[in-house]
Amino acid sequence: VTLDFRSDNTHGVSPEILEALARAGHGTMKSYGGDAVTERLRQRCAAIFEHEVSIFPVVTGTAGNALTIGAMAKPWGAVFCHDEAHVHRDELGAPELFSGGAKMIPIAGANGKLEAEALARAIDNIGLHFGRTSCVSLTQATEAGTVYTPDELRALCDVAHAHECRVHLDGARFANAAAHLGVAPAELTWRAGVDALVLGATKNGALAAEVIIAFDPTLEEELAPRWHRSGHRMSKMRFLSAQLEAYLTDDLWLRNARHANAMAQRLAAGVGNVIQPVEANVVFARLPREIAGYIYYDWTIFGPDAVRLVTAFDTREEDVDAFLAAVRQVK
Amino acid sequence: VTLDFRSDNTHGVSPEILEALARAGHGTMKSYGGDAVTERLRQRCAAIFEHEVSIFPVVTGTAGNALTIGAMAKPWGAVFCHDEAHVHRDELGAPELFSGGAKMIPIAGANGKLEAEALARAIDNIGLHFGRTSCVSLTQATEAGTVYTPDELRALCDVAHAHECRVHLDGARFANAAAHLGVAPAELTWRAGVDALVLGATKNGALAAEVIIAFDPTLEEELAPRWHRSGHRMSKMRFLSAQLEAYLTDDLWLRNARHANAMAQRLAAGVGNVIQPVEANVVFARLPREIAGYIYYDWTIFGPDAVRLVTAFDTREEDVDAFLAAVRQVK
Amino acid sequence: VTLDFRSDNTHGVSPEILEALARAGHGTMKSYGGDAVTERLRQRCAAIFEHEVSIFPVVTGTAGNALTIGAMAKPWGAVFCHDEAHVHRDELGAPELFSGGAKMIPIAGANGKLEAEALARAIDNIGLHFGRTSCVSLTQATEAGTVYTPDELRALCDVAHAHECRVHLDGARFANAAAHLGVAPAELTWRAGVDALVLGATKNGALAAEVIIAFDPTLEEELAPRWHRSGHRMSKMRFLSAQLEAYLTDDLWLRNARHANAMAQRLAAGVGNVIQPVEANVVFARLPREIAGYIYYDWTIFGPDAVRLVTAFDTREEDVDAFLAAVRQVK
Amino acid sequence: VTLDFRSDNTHGVSPEILEALARAGHGTMKSYGGDAVTERLRQRCAAIFEHEVSIFPVVTGTAGNALTIGAMAKPWGAVFCHDEAHVHRDELGAPELFSGGAKMIPIAGANGKLEAEALARAIDNIGLHFGRTSCVSLTQATEAGTVYTPDELRALCDVAHAHECRVHLDGARFANAAAHLGVAPAELTWRAGVDALVLGATKNGALAAEVIIAFDPTLEEELAPRWHRSGHRMSKMRFLSAQLEAYLTDDLWLRNARHANAMAQRLAAGVGNVIQPVEANVVFARLPREIAGYIYYDWTIFGPDAVRLVTAFDTREEDVDAFLAAVRQVK
Repeated sequence: VTLDFRSDNTHGVSPEILEALARAGHGTMKSYGGDAVTERLRQRCAAIFEHEVSIFPVVTGTAGNALTIGAMAKPWGAVFCHDEAHVHRDELGAPELFSGGAKMIPIAGANGKLEAEALARAIDNIGLHFGRTSCVSLTQATEAGTVYTPDELRALCDVAHAHECRVHLDGARFANAAAHLGVAPAELTWRAGVDALVLGATKNGALAAEVIIAFDPTLEEELAPRWHRSGHRMSKMRFLSAQLEAYLTDDLWLRNARHANAMAQRLAAGVGNVIQPVEANVVFARLPREIAGYIYYDWTIFGPDAVRLVTAFDTREEDVDAFLAAVRQVK
Repeated sequence: VTLDFRSDNTHGVSPEILEALARAGHGTMKSYGGDAVTERLRQRCAAIFEHEVSIFPVVTGTAGNALTIGAMAKPWGAVFCHDEAHVHRDELGAPELFSGGAKMIPIAGANGKLEAEALARAIDNIGLHFGRTSCVSLTQATEAGTVYTPDELRALCDVAHAHECRVHLDGARFANAAAHLGVAPAELTWRAGVDALVLGATKNGALAAEVIIAFDPTLEEELAPRWHRSGHRMSKMRFLSAQLEAYLTDDLWLRNARHANAMAQRLAAGVGNVIQPVEANVVFARLPREIAGYIYYDWTIFGPDAVRLVTAFDTREEDVDAFLAAVRQVK
Repeated sequence: VTLDFRSDNTHGVSPEILEALARAGHGTMKSYGGDAVTERLRQRCAAIFEHEVSIFPVVTGTAGNALTIGAMAKPWGAVFCHDEAHVHRDELGAPELFSGGAKMIPIAGANGKLEAEALARAIDNIGLHFGRTSCVSLTQATEAGTVYTPDELRALCDVAHAHECRVHLDGARFANAAAHLGVAPAELTWRAGVDALVLGATKNGALAAEVIIAFDPTLEEELAPRWHRSGHRMSKMRFLSAQLEAYLTDDLWLRNARHANAMAQRLAAGVGNVIQPVEANVVFARLPREIAGYIYYDWTIFGPDAVRLVTAFDTREEDVDAFLAAVRQVK
Repeated sequence: VTLDFRSDNTHGVSPEILEALARAGHGTMKSYGGDAVTERLRQRCAAIFEHEVSIFPVVTGTAGNALTIGAMAKPWGAVFCHDEAHVHRDELGAPELFSGGAKMIPIAGANGKLEAEALARAIDNIGLHFGRTSCVSLTQATEAGTVYTPDELRALCDVAHAHECRVHLDGARFANAAAHLGVAPAELTWRAGVDALVLGATKNGALAAEVIIAFDPTLEEELAPRWHRSGHRMSKMRFLSAQLEAYLTDDLWLRNARHANAMAQRLAAGVGNVIQPVEANVVFARLPREIAGYIYYDWTIFGPDAVRLVTAFDTREEDVDAFLAAVRQVK
């Protein structure tokens, strides 16, 4: 029994991804991304998203998000985001570092979601003509475990573009959102107005792999030097690209996400006192006190007795059920 | 036959390291470096270097070097290095990024080596009282494939410390240097005066793994936030630490390096026209023209017909011999 | 009749200050602050504030504030301020530039004032151990034309220090606050817990002169290099120091401020519909529509018909009365 | 008798400039550069340089130079300059700060001058495709007191532009160079290929005034936000513009410079042992030892007994002659 609902990043690795790594080790290959695996990955991303893309694989979401925001925002620009956004709260100023000091403007919103009207108000409130110096950063699925619909995304992107802001999508749990909605990835990205997605794999079965997927072709010249200069352009890139290629092969990304989502639903159904809609693989609930033998995080931002429970691609039904049994004992 | 002498980073991965990755995937573990693998790695580094250390695993040498330099140099400080140093020439200003704009001062020196007197002159020439704001960055083995002796290192570190500079050692090929000299790692680092080493594994059999090893305990509070903020603190850190642990187990790092060094000696002995002392796994030579069927890099910094040939942990004798035969045909 | 209530920085210069400039031009003097005028200014600041100080004269409040915040906050730290603060809204990210990317955390508060409890909540909410990496930035008088009492300041400084934050005081209109309260400058600064004040003179009769006055002696080594590196250390410093010396001689700073404050009171008493307490030289009111022949700024942050009227050291009673007459005509 | 040959920035102020300041104080004016004085200054600059310009007045050369370089160079770009350049040696990394970390590449050259061939070699040596990310920084008159001819400037600018670098001209002593050459300002700037000039007035009679004059119209959008964000956009801008307007009226700038140059010639003729061509207002010579009663700076970069003697707009013949008499006594 896995006793751990702390985060999807405490879990291990999908066998398909480990096998891909082993395969990628054969022979020599051009370094720094000039290899065949990386080129295949680019083509696969283009096919899945139905759009020409430039790609920049990195090892962490912090890197992917901050590099993309840095490419979109001038040092004197602003970055509008939800006030619970990981890029604002948990990265010690990574977007500030990679943008040369752009200002984060956190905006409140229910269920972890930005609303179009609140976004418009926040941009107007800054009261300066920023020109094309600023961006909006969205998170899909959100930090609250909720999911933006394509219409919600489009409304936010429309506000952003009307104010000359580009749109960055933090997709650490994009697979969970896509699996939940069951719509084409294009509907959740460029067709809604997203200019660049950071697609996460680490939380969903990879060792360490995220990829910046830029739909706006003007971003490449800003991203390429920042990627290299920040130490995020791996020399043996094939080992990063191989993880992502396997992730995007035979729907592994969606299969893993569907499973994690299903486990979250099972958990939510049993645990009760759920305090946010459960649409991805994260459950927020009020629990009486710590459940013996299990670990997870308190989430006091949602109240003194709130906790966060995260499921993963390899969470088993019996893990969930054992936890639910333990909860019932306490109640 | 491997036709590739471009770089050690075009090569694959040591089987021991791939196996360690597979083993590391079992169960859940605390993320961001709070796991048991990372703690074991720290202890192993302390044992091998015979010194208390704090460690920061990262995926690229650029990250390791620039973070360490950023922790040592104030934005208004200077970074003294050899003018062929990778940190100066090939990283698009990574040390400048992570230090907040410290000034690189490149210094000429024969065979890729800084000399103590030239270093002292360069520091004096800047003519400002920097206080403890600046650092010296050395590379071992050097970009020219040569190796500093412990005495040479100590002389340079003494000059640095006499000018209130700390010393960073770029150890992308530290294993090759240690294997060449056959002395204890401590002799090449803190005993000579090095304040922090970036120990490379990527070029010597890992997928992507380097580790900042800080001997100066005051560096930790500067390194920890920079590591996180720059997106270089992996969430599933165990997969980075596991590579490094395997690398430092049963002398894999030295065995791999000794083999690469031996292949470089074999290559140098046969190819002739060698233009730098061959002390690690890199050979610089003058070659008549491109050798059919092989790839390597021109190195015009050493002259119009100069080339660089790099051997790796998995270069075979027959690879070298086939190349030498091809050279003889051309000559 | 002066038709202008836009800002105190649209006004000219006190004769005493112009005369001081003329006097300062005689003979040669050591440059970059090594002159006798600057040393006399330092002693005068120490005497007026009853505390040892280090001083850094600059030409703009933006420079003074951002340099001080940059000296107090680490790049990965936070800067807590009122959400109407000039440093947050009007400087295009100057504190971010000089701090290397520290994060501004704007906090709401009535009448332009931060409240101690709200400050504590905001710091706690960030939820990270910042150590001594962050600061609180207060403005006295506030952007809303109100004034913190010594007790209010002390309560805020106590919260800041309890969370290892230092306190910066933006004193663009510090003279107006001191004149309003009639207490010793020390009561409004270090005795209340302020670590550094940026004392403004530009808005109150100087050509361009502000001075960073550091009470915390550890700030000097962070301020000195930033001052020089940012181009704010004037070579002919005496012409900056001379303005400040005259400003602080024979209570010119307080006399000018008392006059501007009195004109604001006269204006407020006559104009009606005042929407913020008038405690300095700034009046916020609702006006029916633009008053013929006068210029001032709309201030829609306080409502669609809100305006800001600013008086200065050289605003005359007849200027105010003429304006009030014009208002009565419209009403 | 003035006993001071340390620098032109130890001297006072031209009466014409002080009078202009007094005149500028009348009435209220729009702040931050929207005033009539600043607009007249812009027109005057355009007339004198025979070219449309955008202008950004600032109080120090460090600010002017670093802001301009920051507008020309990307963070991952390079700044090529003479290795004695003030921007490289004396500003604690100001260009690095305002560019976000661009790399300074110092280049040796006789008599303080860059040579076109050496510049081309240095750019080629970096060996990276920078695109339009980098710039060349020249100084006129040079730190060695020499002056580039229009042909020399054009040759350097041609090399710069052929490598996609723009050209910044540090004109702290531009007036002295223009006075020496007696050619139109346009010949020394945009007609030779200079993209932006920082025209100094501080060293030549102003209190504190320099102005960035951009000939390349694409620079404005990079300069305007940096100017504001760095605290260098004065609120009462008229007092900065008024100094510059007076400076550029009735050839005051050239008259002051001609006088200072003539005093340098008189000094050079009498002192002997001159070690650099004397073309502006700076004399480098070998002197036996300190001359009683006079102050100036040792300049050991030119040898152990080398000194620098600087004349100014208000140096008198009797000052020079008294010094020469004192030298003869020592010899």
